[in-house]
Amino acid sequence: MINLDQGDPTLFEPYWRKMGDKCTLVIEGCDLMSYFSDISNICWFLQPQLGDAIKRLHRVVGNAVTEDRHIVVGTGSTQLLMAALYALSSPADRHPVSLVAAAPFYSGYKDQAEFLRSGLYKWEGDAQTFDKDGPYIEVVTSPNNPDGAVREAVVNRGEGKLVYDLAYYWPQYTPITLPLDHDIMLFTFSKCTGHAGSRIGWALVKDKEVATKMIEYMQISSIGVSQESQIRAAKILGVLGEGCRTADSENFFEYSHSILKERWERLRNVVKNSRVFSLPKYPRDYCNFTGKYMDSNPAFAWLHSKEDIDWESRLREHKIIARSGERFGASPKHVRISMFSPPEAFNLFLERLSAIIDNTNGNVVT
Amino acid sequence: MINLDQGDPTLFEPYWRKMGDKCTLVIEGCDLMSYFSDISNICWFLQPQLGDAIKRLHRVVGNAVTEDRHIVVGTGSTQLLMAALYALSSPADRHPVSLVAAAPFYSGYKDQAEFLRSGLYKWEGDAQTFDKDGPYIEVVTSPNNPDGAVREAVVNRGEGKLVYDLAYYWPQYTPITLPLDHDIMLFTFSKCTGHAGSRIGWALVKDKEVATKMIEYMQISSIGVSQESQIRAAKILGVLGEGCRTADSENFFEYSHSILKERWERLRNVVKNSRVFSLPKYPRDYCNFTGKYMDSNPAFAWLHSKEDIDWESRLREHKIIARSGERFGASPKHVRISMFSPPEAFNLFLERLSAIIDNTNGNVVT
Repeated sequence: MINLDQGDPTLFEPYWRKMGDKCTLVIEGCDLMSYFSDISNICWFLQPQLGDAIKRLHRVVGNAVTEDRHIVVGTGSTQLLMAALYALSSPADRHPVSLVAAAPFYSGYKDQAEFLRSGLYKWEGDAQTFDKDGPYIEVVTSPNNPDGAVREAVVNRGEGKLVYDLAYYWPQYTPITLPLDHDIMLFTFSKCTGHAGSRIGWALVKDKEVATKMIEYMQISSIGVSQESQIRAAKILGVLGEGCRTADSENFFEYSHSILKERWERLRNVVKNSRVFSLPKYPRDYCNFTGKYMDSNPAFAWLHSKEDIDWESRLREHKIIARSGERFGASPKHVRISMFSPPEAFNLFLERLSAIIDNTNGNVVT
Repeated sequence: MINLDQGDPTLFEPYWRKMGDKCTLVIEGCDLMSYFSDISNICWFLQPQLGDAIKRLHRVVGNAVTEDRHIVVGTGSTQLLMAALYALSSPADRHPVSLVAAAPFYSGYKDQAEFLRSGLYKWEGDAQTFDKDGPYIEVVTSPNNPDGAVREAVVNRGEGKLVYDLAYYWPQYTPITLPLDHDIMLFTFSKCTGHAGSRIGWALVKDKEVATKMIEYMQISSIGVSQESQIRAAKILGVLGEGCRTADSENFFEYSHSILKERWERLRNVVKNSRVFSLPKYPRDYCNFTGKYMDSNPAFAWLHSKEDIDWESRLREHKIIARSGERFGASPKHVRISMFSPPEAFNLFLERLSAIIDNTNGNVVT
């Protein structure tokens, strides 16, 4: 069985191995003992060096405006999405605020909105068909998980509040066309550098009151965020930012981009023999970071098939674990495949997918 | 202003400084990148070395049974309490399960139960006056925060489920009279060693289904727990356990016990001049860990006054920040004072408290 269900970004590990001592962190037994990192900051558990590294990196990459923003750190952007829902809803309202995202949407949002049966917010599904009156929160994931599309808000009503999940708005995945400038923008260390185990995310938040409520969420639910992970993220994001000034394999984004680009080419080569399968096409765009026209190479392949088959089940018969389109508010004719697997698993996946396609006529082998 | 509101345990820092290299942790840039620590464990994000260190330490200290228990790691025991509420409630039930704790109870429980307006559970306050029918969860905090009392469950009905919050059941705070053996027991690295910034807590859970639901909570709310904090906690708990075999200042529990004991003696000396203030008395008990009869020296002083004064406000006038009894379901004649402050702050506190007491007659200076 090869597992292409999760997006566990271990494929970037060799780069960090190569960086050697530059990224090595040493922590003494007496370090980082307090709950508090900086009591002069409304986000009192944010390590100042992490805040600085985040701002520097966004400036170097050019993907988000950080001036006059509050940085809220979280246990992954997962915890920050929960914090944003809390901050943007109001206990005084008689009805829960509606939460929507355009389908296909990240499967985690629904679980996060529903699992505690909160009276503050209610998952209402696809933003494209949403027509309820009243306040709502729209999560805009761009580039989108699962399908890699660059997105804008779709509901666009006055009572709406927007949360931008920008986990994949980094140069290895998509051209950086402008520094985004939204009210709440979420990023995660996991997808930026591949350090998923650290569970570090950050939100750039314009409004102080919203930031304060997000911090309150973090306080009540976990009294802050691991200080060890924060200083490690600060160090690694710092090295990453420095490396961006070079144009060779020292540059993490060039390195990670080249891996994903090669994988996408190989996958497209397999799929093009098929009359049944198709993959999304992405427009080439000018990337301000690289100064070149670039393709998108998303973290997930959103495979579509013409045949009315439950592809999650069918792929499982071929010893490939992937996630059904149904989990993303789409049809089971879609399936999401992680492009992040270890090299051997990716090679096996291409072999097995090739074997499903009858190369004489492009149909599925039955 | 001296802040004795929070229980930030930085006073144990000198011990860990003295330990020098023994507790130093080195993390390479390529370490700990995956979400997964051990896919053979139901708690797939638990570092095996942390699980091992936890079991060893409980065996050395003798405060909890770990055999045939599932260990669930959390971002502090705070996140684990939320996970336990999720695990012990049922979306199928028409009514939310009642959550109670005997007053005075830790002020955080109410916030945690109420802030998301969950339909799964409902805060019902003091367990001693609780008389609602139906399923309930009782949190038993022992030794108790704020008052240091050793506790048992008080409701004791068939439909009840118990969560033991044992944050302070360590030898520096209280005699270890037996290894506890309850269904769900919560511990936290913060109060055990003083490493609050790491945000590491653990639950010892008997029932596999309950553990699985707690793990599901961690997955949906934060996709696991900082790996860096986990391996640091493993290292430090390991050193702590080793040090317990010695009977001198190398032994952390002797060190931390002697600090707290001295502070309590000094505080009791100040309070005994007063006819107005009183402190709880704790029975001496035989401690299996030290092999001696020991006093309790809780992390908080639960100061009671005969005079009908809002002591939080009155102390604030004397530049002492403490937490009102009202926050703990008690009267404002009580106030909780952290015994964890830096030495200078503790000295100042004693000076200021002395100044409030008229030493000629024991009344409060007006």
